[in-house]
Amino acid sequence: MAAEPRVVVVGGVAAGMSAASRAKRRRPGAHVVVFERGAQISYGACGLPYNLADPSSSIDDLVVLTPQDARDKRGIDLRLRSEVIGIDIDSGRVVARNRETGRETREPFDALILATGARPIRPSLPGMDLPGVQVLRNLEDGRRIKALLAARPRKAVIVGGGYIGVEMAHTLADRGLGVTVLEKLPEILPGWEAETIARVREELDRNGVEARTDTELLGVEADARGNLAAVATSGGSIPTDFVLVAIGVRPNSELAGETGLDLGSFGEIRTDDHQQTSHPAVWAAGDCTSAVDRLTGNLAWVPLGTTANKQGRVAGANAVGGNARFTGIVATSGFKVFDLEVARAGLTSDRARKEALDPVSVVIRHPSRAHSYPGGSSIQVKLVADRLSTRLLGGELVGREGAAMRVNVLATALAGEMSVAELQNLDLVYAPPFAPIWDPLLVAANQLAKKVASCSTPSELYR
Amino acid sequence: MAAEPRVVVVGGVAAGMSAASRAKRRRPGAHVVVFERGAQISYGACGLPYNLADPSSSIDDLVVLTPQDARDKRGIDLRLRSEVIGIDIDSGRVVARNRETGRETREPFDALILATGARPIRPSLPGMDLPGVQVLRNLEDGRRIKALLAARPRKAVIVGGGYIGVEMAHTLADRGLGVTVLEKLPEILPGWEAETIARVREELDRNGVEARTDTELLGVEADARGNLAAVATSGGSIPTDFVLVAIGVRPNSELAGETGLDLGSFGEIRTDDHQQTSHPAVWAAGDCTSAVDRLTGNLAWVPLGTTANKQGRVAGANAVGGNARFTGIVATSGFKVFDLEVARAGLTSDRARKEALDPVSVVIRHPSRAHSYPGGSSIQVKLVADRLSTRLLGGELVGREGAAMRVNVLATALAGEMSVAELQNLDLVYAPPFAPIWDPLLVAANQLAKKVASCSTPSELYR
Repeated sequence: MAAEPRVVVVGGVAAGMSAASRAKRRRPGAHVVVFERGAQISYGACGLPYNLADPSSSIDDLVVLTPQDARDKRGIDLRLRSEVIGIDIDSGRVVARNRETGRETREPFDALILATGARPIRPSLPGMDLPGVQVLRNLEDGRRIKALLAARPRKAVIVGGGYIGVEMAHTLADRGLGVTVLEKLPEILPGWEAETIARVREELDRNGVEARTDTELLGVEADARGNLAAVATSGGSIPTDFVLVAIGVRPNSELAGETGLDLGSFGEIRTDDHQQTSHPAVWAAGDCTSAVDRLTGNLAWVPLGTTANKQGRVAGANAVGGNARFTGIVATSGFKVFDLEVARAGLTSDRARKEALDPVSVVIRHPSRAHSYPGGSSIQVKLVADRLSTRLLGGELVGREGAAMRVNVLATALAGEMSVAELQNLDLVYAPPFAPIWDPLLVAANQLAKKVASCSTPSELYR
Repeated sequence: MAAEPRVVVVGGVAAGMSAASRAKRRRPGAHVVVFERGAQISYGACGLPYNLADPSSSIDDLVVLTPQDARDKRGIDLRLRSEVIGIDIDSGRVVARNRETGRETREPFDALILATGARPIRPSLPGMDLPGVQVLRNLEDGRRIKALLAARPRKAVIVGGGYIGVEMAHTLADRGLGVTVLEKLPEILPGWEAETIARVREELDRNGVEARTDTELLGVEADARGNLAAVATSGGSIPTDFVLVAIGVRPNSELAGETGLDLGSFGEIRTDDHQQTSHPAVWAAGDCTSAVDRLTGNLAWVPLGTTANKQGRVAGANAVGGNARFTGIVATSGFKVFDLEVARAGLTSDRARKEALDPVSVVIRHPSRAHSYPGGSSIQVKLVADRLSTRLLGGELVGREGAAMRVNVLATALAGEMSVAELQNLDLVYAPPFAPIWDPLLVAANQLAKKVASCSTPSELYR
């Protein structure tokens, strides 16, 4: 590597900007070029559903770092609206095309970081290109949806009952739309525990959102004037003014694949725990790659902003000669739907069984605050452990307050490979405004302890 | 031990009722007798400051389990208003005196559990027995204070600036009193980090509570009619209608001491990690005993309800032949004062230095929610780690929302003996309504990583 390396980063949102910033911080003399397809960088896409709920807020509120600050304060050579269309890995050059002028440029690199992200899956069905049919991924999508909502549509169909679909159901209901969520599987929130899903469904019902499961989208229909009119589904036609397609994302790994880099089973760019790809001069980070699931030791594809930022830092450090390592994920995630906080970490019972573990689980409900303190509500906790090893495998929480932040205890315990007994013994805070004397997590752990290996009794670790 | 053991428990609040309930659960045939000095059992004393803030609430709201339910549902032989005044350990009997009738009874035991708790320290100063001078420990204290407050006093002096003093300053200010907190040390909240204290002082100031530090109580003064009129202090006289003495508690271990059981350096009943005292037929749990501090491996006296409940379960199980172990504490605690949440776990920098560690620390402020999500506020985090081993030693949080529950991440990380790098790599939840993409704890960990052993760089664990 040259004394002052040339680093090229492809993609300027979460992982890409983290990587670029880290490389500059670690090696201030490095020349760091970031190519970004869009006109903005470093935005909090996860905030889109919440931003869209508020007609008065600007989509630009989601921008964390402006292009000018990236250039002036971080010293990054930023190329906006520039798409990398080719990589010559042997000569160490990328080819980029300016999306406004069409002009192509070549940029040499000593180290290349791919942070190409993921893109929404769009089904190949009739009518998908009608105005009023949208995906939600980037700021431009947000802007388009905001404009569509300004025209006061009355009905919306959300295709896909994952957590983005559920968050957007809340957003659109808040904006006064009648909302129907379509899910082709038997239940919404695929991959979550049944007990959690039941609470979310109650909350959707309570707020007038209809969730139609086992219902597949067949196409989108226009009226005689060519305007969006309805969606055709396996359960019949549903009139609508707005369609949001939120059936998932897939990694943007085509460029890496064409370059000959190894891809993984999720279609992602394969890396090791140093975020290095199959080529020693190329790193990858964020939604275009996977991460080690600390529960199974296997690679998992859980595209989330937190992971993207952490992986970006690792890739950025290593691209300028560092030796950083990303230790993996426990798949922590959370969202809010109406008044309900929902969060999870680790494996569900189903996932654990698929991993050939022998899961046992409990579901409890316990108050969020001391019983004598006003304003508390019930938190539902599901915990999953491995019967034989008694190791905690995962958990989910649902409640009106204090549910989401408690998942961090599980995330920490999972990272620490704690047993159920260790969870029972945690010295969690007690103060009437925040928690009852036995935190809901400890109540669940005490119950779960009865179910794990037969020699184990609550609070008792045998000598 | 007999086939169906006779278990005597001394004290019926947190540890005592946990022990009794656990013993019955583990061994339903056991005869479990609980002697309680007061008229009620199993109440949440930590809720007293919050209960007193509300004139319309009843002190009885703090009762978790009624005597009748303890008898009928848990099968416990409950003796209320009965004080154990002697233990004949060789013959296996206690002597109890009924506080109403004065009648003494003897009760045989195979196993004895001491859960005698702690009592407030009352300084030997003039005027301490005047009406209007109160401590706050049990429900009777609460009832008396509630009656005093009903008479609408205008000014209060709180002697002692620990967290109970601070919580009660909030309570009394809410009830419309002018409040002065006296602290003889140079700062309130002894044992907390200076940066945390500064935020609490700001909050007290903002709410009109005066904190007078370096000020010692010399006595309480009456007017000509014998009514409470003022406190005499090293800084002059302060007129007042109400005095709360909250200068700490000490373990009730006299009975154990007279019985010949070993006492520890805090004056507490010494136990091992099975809650067994120096006599094999006697266990102790709760505020009358200590616990292993998991950070130092030494015994610490941190009398809190959570620990009492956990230790009670262990003592109860072991008293009927179990082999349970209490793994210790990390001294997690928290409270709310006005709009501020305050919480801590582990060692402060000062404590770490006293333990011959080499602490490094950081203090950061970071938003509680994604910057684009409304309603967030700044959380202050102080983290302390050992420079050489890079192990996390402790932390404190202060903020208007989300500060208290985040301390549980630290409590869990401390129990897991995590390093700063492990903390950096935690997969904490991100969702705009609850947390920013870099949680304040991770921001602090990233900063702290720069200060620990020189080979360590944020997010980088060297191979």
